[in-house]
Amino acid sequence: MVLEFAVSPKTKPPAKMSTPSPFLYSILILIVSFLCQASAIQLNGARYLGNFWSSSRTLSLLAKSRAPKYQYETKYFQQKLDHFSFAALPSFSQRYLINTQHWEGPSRSGPIFLYCGNEGDIEWFAANTGFVWEIAPRFGAMVIFPEHRYYGESMPYGSKEEAYKNATTLSYLTAEQALADYAVLITELKRNLSAQACPVVLFGGSYGGMLAAWMRLKYPHISIGALASSAPVLQFEDLVPPETFYSIVSNGFRRESMSCFNTIKESWDVINKVGQTNSGLAQLTKTFHICRELESVDSLSNWLESAYSYLAMVNYPYPTDFLMPLPGSPIKEVCRKIDSLPDGASVLQRIFEGISVYYNYTGKVDCFDLNDDPHGMSGWDWQACTEMIMPMASNRTTSMFPEFYYDPKSNEEQCLKNFHVKPRPTWITTEFGGHEFKSALKAFGSNIIFSNGLLDPWSGGSVLEDVSETIVALTTKKGAHHLDLRAATAEDPDWLLDQRSSEIKLIRGWLDEHYDEKKAISAYR
Amino acid sequence: MVLEFAVSPKTKPPAKMSTPSPFLYSILILIVSFLCQASAIQLNGARYLGNFWSSSRTLSLLAKSRAPKYQYETKYFQQKLDHFSFAALPSFSQRYLINTQHWEGPSRSGPIFLYCGNEGDIEWFAANTGFVWEIAPRFGAMVIFPEHRYYGESMPYGSKEEAYKNATTLSYLTAEQALADYAVLITELKRNLSAQACPVVLFGGSYGGMLAAWMRLKYPHISIGALASSAPVLQFEDLVPPETFYSIVSNGFRRESMSCFNTIKESWDVINKVGQTNSGLAQLTKTFHICRELESVDSLSNWLESAYSYLAMVNYPYPTDFLMPLPGSPIKEVCRKIDSLPDGASVLQRIFEGISVYYNYTGKVDCFDLNDDPHGMSGWDWQACTEMIMPMASNRTTSMFPEFYYDPKSNEEQCLKNFHVKPRPTWITTEFGGHEFKSALKAFGSNIIFSNGLLDPWSGGSVLEDVSETIVALTTKKGAHHLDLRAATAEDPDWLLDQRSSEIKLIRGWLDEHYDEKKAISAYR
Repeated sequence: MVLEFAVSPKTKPPAKMSTPSPFLYSILILIVSFLCQASAIQLNGARYLGNFWSSSRTLSLLAKSRAPKYQYETKYFQQKLDHFSFAALPSFSQRYLINTQHWEGPSRSGPIFLYCGNEGDIEWFAANTGFVWEIAPRFGAMVIFPEHRYYGESMPYGSKEEAYKNATTLSYLTAEQALADYAVLITELKRNLSAQACPVVLFGGSYGGMLAAWMRLKYPHISIGALASSAPVLQFEDLVPPETFYSIVSNGFRRESMSCFNTIKESWDVINKVGQTNSGLAQLTKTFHICRELESVDSLSNWLESAYSYLAMVNYPYPTDFLMPLPGSPIKEVCRKIDSLPDGASVLQRIFEGISVYYNYTGKVDCFDLNDDPHGMSGWDWQACTEMIMPMASNRTTSMFPEFYYDPKSNEEQCLKNFHVKPRPTWITTEFGGHEFKSALKAFGSNIIFSNGLLDPWSGGSVLEDVSETIVALTTKKGAHHLDLRAATAEDPDWLLDQRSSEIKLIRGWLDEHYDEKKAISAYR
Repeated sequence: MVLEFAVSPKTKPPAKMSTPSPFLYSILILIVSFLCQASAIQLNGARYLGNFWSSSRTLSLLAKSRAPKYQYETKYFQQKLDHFSFAALPSFSQRYLINTQHWEGPSRSGPIFLYCGNEGDIEWFAANTGFVWEIAPRFGAMVIFPEHRYYGESMPYGSKEEAYKNATTLSYLTAEQALADYAVLITELKRNLSAQACPVVLFGGSYGGMLAAWMRLKYPHISIGALASSAPVLQFEDLVPPETFYSIVSNGFRRESMSCFNTIKESWDVINKVGQTNSGLAQLTKTFHICRELESVDSLSNWLESAYSYLAMVNYPYPTDFLMPLPGSPIKEVCRKIDSLPDGASVLQRIFEGISVYYNYTGKVDCFDLNDDPHGMSGWDWQACTEMIMPMASNRTTSMFPEFYYDPKSNEEQCLKNFHVKPRPTWITTEFGGHEFKSALKAFGSNIIFSNGLLDPWSGGSVLEDVSETIVALTTKKGAHHLDLRAATAEDPDWLLDQRSSEIKLIRGWLDEHYDEKKAISAYR
């Protein structure tokens, strides 16, 4: 569960609600950037920030992001704050990373590979999207990673502090504005480089994948195709059942071990029961190695729920260090821990052992700080309270999580309270298509790959079947959250090599078709 | 020439520039609505308003628009002022006209015919778009005419006075916002009527045609097809030569009579020469029956140029009373007048006789008032200074107009001066496609009719060749500005009947295909 990162605290069942980010990891990134920018926050080994990020961990990740794996120049482009009005607003400086080293250039119509930056620092995405960097040379492609407005360094009003000040300054943090940023940037960049004839291929993961697919829908003249990886474009309104996300998370655990699934499912009642008294809370604090005394069971439950969800997202087949340093197939490891304690072990002890795989795989953390930053305004919190209204629920039958249903009214109240803004729950479906999304794409679209790993809980809100001959779904049974976009490793399983190979072939096909058409046109002339 | 209605006074050749509206007639309509609303302006038989609208004429047209030809209910819908931000702005009330009399209803998935209101009072467009009303019954279709924001009664900030107050209040008058208005209105209306399964077909003429085509591009999930009549979607940047418009106007006169064309072409020098002295201006004032003494020749030239352009637009094959009461093929009549004066007649006398066909066909006007309202802020003036930057020029070889070229810098200066706003000359092509517009449509579109009459000077900026099997161009050699959208008359020539019949067949085809697909899907289920 992600409620710490989203705006609204959950209300109790049956009125429990949630508005999680589909992009949990990037919220983490956001926390990283908060850390980086919020100089008021002291950093030292003993202090923890956020729910489950020790500051030392955070700093080590930060250090990594500061030493980019890939070569690029960092540039800036002046953007209008509101593309769709002529209000006298200050422009802002959009950061983008660019590499033209392997580009075949305008004379040979060399392609442009553009990653649609999502809700985080663009250097972080660049570092974690090795696929684009690795395949660019074989296509003779330029690589660009523009940053999403209101994230990283691309701050309107001069600073994050000013940009995030209130609902007025935040009001231009919308997906449509971000799409227009990309359209304007590409158009101007091509003009400056005399590269108007160079075809653009879009890439994106998670929310970035949604942006890539939506770019294809809204700006078909800007690109020739898009790889939208783990893009839950259907996770809106009633397009998919609200239970989908947590059911997939739960299945990930049930698949490994029924007893593991049951232990987690039972644990919520145990935690609630124990936590009803002060001495019980003290006991929970001790059992779970929480640094500060627990004031309610909710914060503990949320912390646990978040970990299970993240585990399902990053349930990669080999060891990774993306959200956290983790073993390969981390859910298997969590369940092994939960199940392998001796018969007499308590439910709480099992849960602690399991969760430690996620929060403390290196064994270096002494205690955990569950405090999130309830008044910090991360960008996605705003987006989740305005446009990105993704209904979520958990039911008794398919979920190992506590039961709750989606309550739009309570969501609205929380958003009004926290941001003084009213959500528009039907706007995304109006703007980008709701129940007609697929049929509109079919009749009015081409060249999109929706790639998904079925272990990823966000896959349930994405496109899992071919829409047309050129709008195809690539799903992998054992894949997780946009695994295909990560850099190749020696441990990549065959099915992952196959998936990436299919993607390369499809992109090659788009480009070949594009060049053939251009040739046909110039021959005709 | 239309410069009186556009923002910027022309500068002299070679730095002459212009930003005419493609929708001259609706600017007239705007003047009508100004008349209606500007209570400060006295209306009486002796006073003239605008360039060539006698107040009596205006009032008679107004009276017509007040007694609608077609049956509808008038309703209002609350719209966000800025769909693409969450700034705390007041909502506004969008007017729409609706008729469900012939609608087959949700149970039979009866279609919805929607006219994309353009830059004027929607009742006026409803009265002049008989085609939609006339064909709706045979399709069992609902008819809706939503009004474009900032026109007619659909005024943000409560009144036209407030809405047009300054650049800040006007800043949300953009095409993208209007498209979003239509998308939201349709979505909500369908939801309220349980008509989600009812297919929407869009219609639009001139700027309304551009909106209809752009709706298809930007909101493919909202409609199944669009008839875009006389929609100059390519009249931007360098997509068509800037001389196109005035060359087509000039061809209209050359076609009728070479001597007529030459007389007009010569007249500018004569007027300029005579007008160099005060006594010469007095002479011109007298010759052309101008009510108030001319202060410069420019106002006279502009008045003449406007008439020639309008004549080309409404060069309909039968008598009409759209912009003005006019005979059928009015250019023929103008040239007959110019050519038929005896040999000794002066150029000026010939021009006056010709122009009188346009400005005074009924013979009831005693003198003409050339005053436009240079400080009045009509909506299109704003649009022409912000997004709708349509480069125009006139060259010696193909044009009968004075020579001038397009000067973006001078345009920008004028817009800054008049509206305190900077034009975005490359925005429309970035947002909707520039040189890639057609190829993007081909790869990423379906079901659009671009209909054009080749006599219409705006046809040069429209789509005149089939783009794909389902994006087709219907051109008529003898048609003028969106003649096909007008009500049927007994005098309609065969080619016009053929054109409308083709349009009906194509729309029928879209609907049949849509219903077949829906049937196939439900059979599959």
